[in-house]
Amino acid sequence: MTEKPVALIVLAAGQGSRMQSDLPKVLHRLGGMPLVAHALAAGRTLAPEAVVVVAGHGAEAVKKAVAKLDPEAQIALQDQQLGTAHAVGQALPLLEGFEGRVIVLYGDTPFIGQETLASLAAHPADVVVLGFEAADPGRYGRLVTGPKGLERIVEYKDADEATRAIRLVNSGVLAADAALLRECLPRIGNRNAAGEYYLTDLPALAREAGCRVEVVTCDESETLGINTRAELAAAEAAFQARARAQALEDGVTLSDPATVWFALDTCIGRDAVIGQNVVFGPGVTVESGAEILPFCHLEGCHVSAGATVGPFARLRPGAELGGDVHVGNFVEIKNAVLDEGVKVGHLTYLGDAHIGEATNIGAGTVTCNYDGVSKHRTEIGAHAFIGSDTMLVAPVRVGARAMTGSGSVITQDVPDDALALGRAKQVVKPGLAARLMQALRQKKGN
Amino acid sequence: MTEKPVALIVLAAGQGSRMQSDLPKVLHRLGGMPLVAHALAAGRTLAPEAVVVVAGHGAEAVKKAVAKLDPEAQIALQDQQLGTAHAVGQALPLLEGFEGRVIVLYGDTPFIGQETLASLAAHPADVVVLGFEAADPGRYGRLVTGPKGLERIVEYKDADEATRAIRLVNSGVLAADAALLRECLPRIGNRNAAGEYYLTDLPALAREAGCRVEVVTCDESETLGINTRAELAAAEAAFQARARAQALEDGVTLSDPATVWFALDTCIGRDAVIGQNVVFGPGVTVESGAEILPFCHLEGCHVSAGATVGPFARLRPGAELGGDVHVGNFVEIKNAVLDEGVKVGHLTYLGDAHIGEATNIGAGTVTCNYDGVSKHRTEIGAHAFIGSDTMLVAPVRVGARAMTGSGSVITQDVPDDALALGRAKQVVKPGLAARLMQALRQKKGN
Amino acid sequence: MTEKPVALIVLAAGQGSRMQSDLPKVLHRLGGMPLVAHALAAGRTLAPEAVVVVAGHGAEAVKKAVAKLDPEAQIALQDQQLGTAHAVGQALPLLEGFEGRVIVLYGDTPFIGQETLASLAAHPADVVVLGFEAADPGRYGRLVTGPKGLERIVEYKDADEATRAIRLVNSGVLAADAALLRECLPRIGNRNAAGEYYLTDLPALAREAGCRVEVVTCDESETLGINTRAELAAAEAAFQARARAQALEDGVTLSDPATVWFALDTCIGRDAVIGQNVVFGPGVTVESGAEILPFCHLEGCHVSAGATVGPFARLRPGAELGGDVHVGNFVEIKNAVLDEGVKVGHLTYLGDAHIGEATNIGAGTVTCNYDGVSKHRTEIGAHAFIGSDTMLVAPVRVGARAMTGSGSVITQDVPDDALALGRAKQVVKPGLAARLMQALRQKKGN
Repeated sequence: MTEKPVALIVLAAGQGSRMQSDLPKVLHRLGGMPLVAHALAAGRTLAPEAVVVVAGHGAEAVKKAVAKLDPEAQIALQDQQLGTAHAVGQALPLLEGFEGRVIVLYGDTPFIGQETLASLAAHPADVVVLGFEAADPGRYGRLVTGPKGLERIVEYKDADEATRAIRLVNSGVLAADAALLRECLPRIGNRNAAGEYYLTDLPALAREAGCRVEVVTCDESETLGINTRAELAAAEAAFQARARAQALEDGVTLSDPATVWFALDTCIGRDAVIGQNVVFGPGVTVESGAEILPFCHLEGCHVSAGATVGPFARLRPGAELGGDVHVGNFVEIKNAVLDEGVKVGHLTYLGDAHIGEATNIGAGTVTCNYDGVSKHRTEIGAHAFIGSDTMLVAPVRVGARAMTGSGSVITQDVPDDALALGRAKQVVKPGLAARLMQALRQKKGN
Repeated sequence: MTEKPVALIVLAAGQGSRMQSDLPKVLHRLGGMPLVAHALAAGRTLAPEAVVVVAGHGAEAVKKAVAKLDPEAQIALQDQQLGTAHAVGQALPLLEGFEGRVIVLYGDTPFIGQETLASLAAHPADVVVLGFEAADPGRYGRLVTGPKGLERIVEYKDADEATRAIRLVNSGVLAADAALLRECLPRIGNRNAAGEYYLTDLPALAREAGCRVEVVTCDESETLGINTRAELAAAEAAFQARARAQALEDGVTLSDPATVWFALDTCIGRDAVIGQNVVFGPGVTVESGAEILPFCHLEGCHVSAGATVGPFARLRPGAELGGDVHVGNFVEIKNAVLDEGVKVGHLTYLGDAHIGEATNIGAGTVTCNYDGVSKHRTEIGAHAFIGSDTMLVAPVRVGARAMTGSGSVITQDVPDDALALGRAKQVVKPGLAARLMQALRQKKGN
Repeated sequence: MTEKPVALIVLAAGQGSRMQSDLPKVLHRLGGMPLVAHALAAGRTLAPEAVVVVAGHGAEAVKKAVAKLDPEAQIALQDQQLGTAHAVGQALPLLEGFEGRVIVLYGDTPFIGQETLASLAAHPADVVVLGFEAADPGRYGRLVTGPKGLERIVEYKDADEATRAIRLVNSGVLAADAALLRECLPRIGNRNAAGEYYLTDLPALAREAGCRVEVVTCDESETLGINTRAELAAAEAAFQARARAQALEDGVTLSDPATVWFALDTCIGRDAVIGQNVVFGPGVTVESGAEILPFCHLEGCHVSAGATVGPFARLRPGAELGGDVHVGNFVEIKNAVLDEGVKVGHLTYLGDAHIGEATNIGAGTVTCNYDGVSKHRTEIGAHAFIGSDTMLVAPVRVGARAMTGSGSVITQDVPDDALALGRAKQVVKPGLAARLMQALRQKKGN
C-alpha cells in the first residue's frame, strides 16, 4: 500500500502534569505496556526505515523503555518543551539523508489505527493532516478546507463564529515529505501567547510554498489522547472492550469477558477457554484448545494445546507449557520448560527448570534455585515422579523414571530409574500427644 | 397445573457455525453448565414422562453430556440437519406409545421460564405456539391470529407489508398432542429455498385438519437464543444478573454482586456472606451464615453453617465442610469430609480424606494421595493436631487426639493420643553461614 | 467553622426487616466497615463533645461494634421502637449538662458529607432541618418554607396537591440546640396511624415556642438510606465509585478501577500502583510508590514505599512491610514486621514474627506459631537466609546473617552467622523407582 519509504517521529517529551505522577506520562501502562508502545506498534506496521522518539521529561526512563520495546528506535532529546514544531525539529537531524514520508505521532495517543496510518503514508499530497469529525468540536483546532484541500488550521481561540461551526478538527497527527519538513519547519515562528513553535502552522506554510496539503480522516475514537488518570482508565476500558470483542469473534471462550485483561500483544487460539479473572501481562500466547481457569496471572509465557492452568496459577516469563500439561492451584512457574503431559497440581514453585515429558510433580515441591547469591537450574527427566514436598536444591538433576520420596531434600543428582530419599524414620511415642497437650494447657492456665 | 402427561423433545443438533468453535453449540457453558442443561432443567419441572434430546453435530459429545446431566433422557440422532420438523421426526419413534402433550424446546434457548412451560403443557388447544411481542420484530416469523386462534406462521420473507407490521412473533417453541404430531409431521414438505422441513408449517396443517391452534405468549427475554459468542456472553451476563438479584432478595450478603458467578444449581442460605470474586461451579450448597471470603473457587461441595472459607481457597468436588470449619488461604480440598470445627488455615492440600471433629491441620500439610498409579485415603481422628508441613503418605490413619511433629513424613498409622515424629535432629554449625556466603560471593565474583 | 460545642445522636435501633437478615441493619458492611461507622466517621470530623448511639434491635451486637469503632461513643438503649423522637429521647439523658448543638444522624444513612454536617453545626437557627431537592419527591415529607424559614414538615399522606408539588423534602437529619430539644421533645405526641413519636413534629413545636427554624440543603446523593440488600449493593457501588475516582485524582495508578475495593479508611500514596482485583479491608495504608499486584487481599497492614506485594498475597492485621520489601505469590503475612528489603517470594506463612533487614525467606517457609494451645513468636535477624521449606517452631530466634538448610525444622535458636540444618542424608537406591512403579501397576492391574 505504501510506496514511499516512511519514517516515524513519536513525540513523547511532555510532562503530563495532570497525571499527578512522577512517572513520565508515556510510560504509564495501557494494555499491560507503556503508552508509547501503542504508537510504536501501530507505526511499525508501516515497516518504517527509521523511528525517532522525542523524549524530554523523564528522558532517561523513556529512553530505557523504548530501548526495550523497540531496540531500533532512536531517541532525540528535547530539553525544553518549546512546542510540537520544536520537538519535530529535534528529531530531524536523526533522519539526515532520509527521503520519503515522515509521519508525526504522539506517545500519548495510543489508538491511531493501522489503516489510518497506511492512508497517511500512501497519500499523494505533500502534507497530510489527520482530522476527524468531532461529536463535540469543543476547543480543537478547526480544519478549514477548500477545493484545493486543507487551507489552514485555525486554533479555537482565533476562530470566528463561522469557523467554530466547522466540525472537522485536527488530531495533531500529520504526514509530510521529509524535504518539505526540512524546508518549512525553520520558518515556523513562536509569536503566540505561549511563545511556542506549533506544528499546526506547517500546512499554511506549505500551501504558501505551493505544496499540496490534504486532510485524511479517521474515527474520533482513534484520536483519543490521555491527560489524566481518569482518561487513562477510560482508555484502558476502551482497549479492553475492543480486545475482548475481538477474542470472542476469533472463537475464544471467555466465561466473563469483563474480567479478562489483555495486553497489547496477547495471542489466544480458537476454542481456548479463559475463565473469570485472568490477567495477561505482555508476551503471552495460548494455543487453541488450552484452558485457563479463573484467577490466573500470566506474563511472558506459552501455553500449548490441551494444557490446563489454574485456578490460582501464576506463569512468569519463560514459562513454557507443552501439550496437555496441567498446572494447578497455588503453583508458580518461572523460566521453566514443562514438556508434554507434565502435571504440577498444587502448591509448587518451579523456577529455572526443565521437566521432562509426563513427569508428575507432587504438592509442595520447590526448586531451590537461589543460594543467596546466584540462581541455579534443576533438570528432571521424563516419566519421573517427584514426591510431595520435595526440595530440589539446584543445581541438581533427577533422571528419567526416577522417584523422590515425599519430604526429601535432594542435593545430589538422582540417576535414571533410581529412588532418592532424604527422610528421617518415623517414630511413634504412644500417649505422648495427650500428655504434651495437657502440659501446654496447664502452662497456659498458670 | 399440568393435566395431560408431558414429553419433551429438545433440539440440539445444530452446528452453531457462528460460534467459531469445534465444540457443539449446546455444550458451550452458561451458568457453569452446558447450554442444553438449562432447557432440560426447566423442562424437568413439568415432571415429563419422557425426554428426548435430538443430537447431530458432535452427537457423541452431546450424548455424553446429556447422560451426565439427565441420565433418564434419551438421545435421537439426526445425522443430516434437514430442518426442525425433520429433527422432531427423528425423536418421535422414541416416544412410541406416549399419549399426551409433546413440547419442543431448543438446546440453545436457555431462558424459557417454568411458568411458560406449565402454560404450554396445560393449554387445552391441540397445538400451542409460544410467541412474544418483539421490541423489534425484525426477521422473526409473524404469528397471524384470528378469532379462532393462530391461523398461520408467516416467514418474514414471505410476509406482505401488513403482515410485517405484526409484532407478535414466533419463538420456535411449540406444544402439540402426540397423536396430532404423528399424523401431521409426515405431511410437512420441503419445497422452500433451503429444502428443509420446517416445524413452523405444523400449525397451518393442524388447522386444516380441524384442530385447535392457539398462541401462548411470554416475555421476549425468555426467548433469547444463542448464535455467537457475543450472544453467549450477553446471555451469561443476563443469567448472572438474575441470579445475583435473586440471591440478594433471598437475604444473601454479596459484597460486590457483579463479581460473584453462580451456576445454574447454586444454592446459598440466608445471611451467608459472599465476598468479592467468588466463582461457583456446579453443585455447590452454602448454608445460612457461612462466609466465603474473596477470591474463592468452589464446585461440587457443601459448606455448613458457621464455616469460613478463603480468601484464596479452592473447594473441589466432594469437599464437605462441617459446621464452624475454617478453610484459609491457599488451601485446596478435594473429595474430603471435614467434621465440625476442623481448622485448615494455610497452604494445604487435603484430598481423599476424612478429618475428625475439631482437628487442627498445620500450614503446608499435604495428603500424599497419589503414588503415581492409584489414589489412596487419609483418615485423621477428632481433636488431632497435625504439625506444619506434615506429609501424610496415604493410605494412612492418624488417631484421635494424636499429634504429628512439624516437618514429619507419616507413612505408618499413628494410634490415638500418640505423637508421631519423622524429623532429623537440628545441627548448628557456628560461623558456617558467614563462611559459606563469603565463598559463594567469591565464586560468583570470579 | 463550628462555634458551639456539638453532640451527635446516631439512631441505630431499627430492625431493617427488609434486609432479610438476622444481622442488625447498621452492622451490614459498606466500604469494608459496618454501616454505622460511616455516620460516626463523618460526625467525628466535627470534633463532638459527646456521641450517643441509640441501639435497639441487636443492641448487644451494635454495642460491641460501636465500642470497637468509636470507644468514646456512648450507647443508649431503645427497647421498644416507638419512633424517632422517642429514640432521641432515650439518648438525651446521656447528654445531661451538655449545652450546644445536637445533631441527629442515622446509622443507615452513610453518605452525609462533612461540609453538610459543618453547616448544620454552624447555622445560627435554633433548629436546622437537612433537606434536599428530590429528583422524584415520591413519598418523602415535604418541607414547607416561608419568609421566616421552615414552617412545618408535612408527611406525604397528609399533604394536599399544592404541598405535594413541593420538591424540597426532608432527609430526617436535624440539628437543634440541646436546651430546645429538652424542652420540646416531651411535647411530641403519638396521635398518628402508627402510634409513634416523630421527630418531624419538632420544627413546628419549635416555631410555636418562638424559635428560629431553618432548612439547610445538600445533594440528594448524601441522603441515600439503606433498606434492602439491593440498596446496600447500590450504596456500595456508589461508595466504591467515589473512592476510585478520588484515588485517581490523588495520583494513584489503578489498572482497572472497577476491580479495586476500598474500605472507608484506606489510605494510598501518590504513584502507588494497584493492579486488578485488590481488596482493601479496614486499616490499610500503602505508601507512595509501592506496588500491589493483582489478586491481593489486605487488611490492617502497612506497605512502605518501594515494596511490591503479590500477585496472590494476603496481608492480615499487623503486617508491616518496610521499604523495598517483596512479598510474592501465595504468601500470607500476619502480625509480623518485615524490615527494609526483606524478600518473601513464594508459598510462605509468616505469623507473629519479626524479620530483620534484607533477610531472604525461601519458598514454603512456615512460622509454626501455634502449638495447639498458644501462639508464639519467631525472630529472625538481618541479612539471614532461610532455606526453602524451613519450619520455624516458635518460640524461636534465628540470628543475623544465619542460614537454615532447606527442609529443616528449627526448634532451637540459631546464633548469628551460624548454619542450622535438620535434614536426613540423601540416600539413592538405583533402579528402585522403576521396580516400585512396576509393582504398583501390577497391583492395580490385579
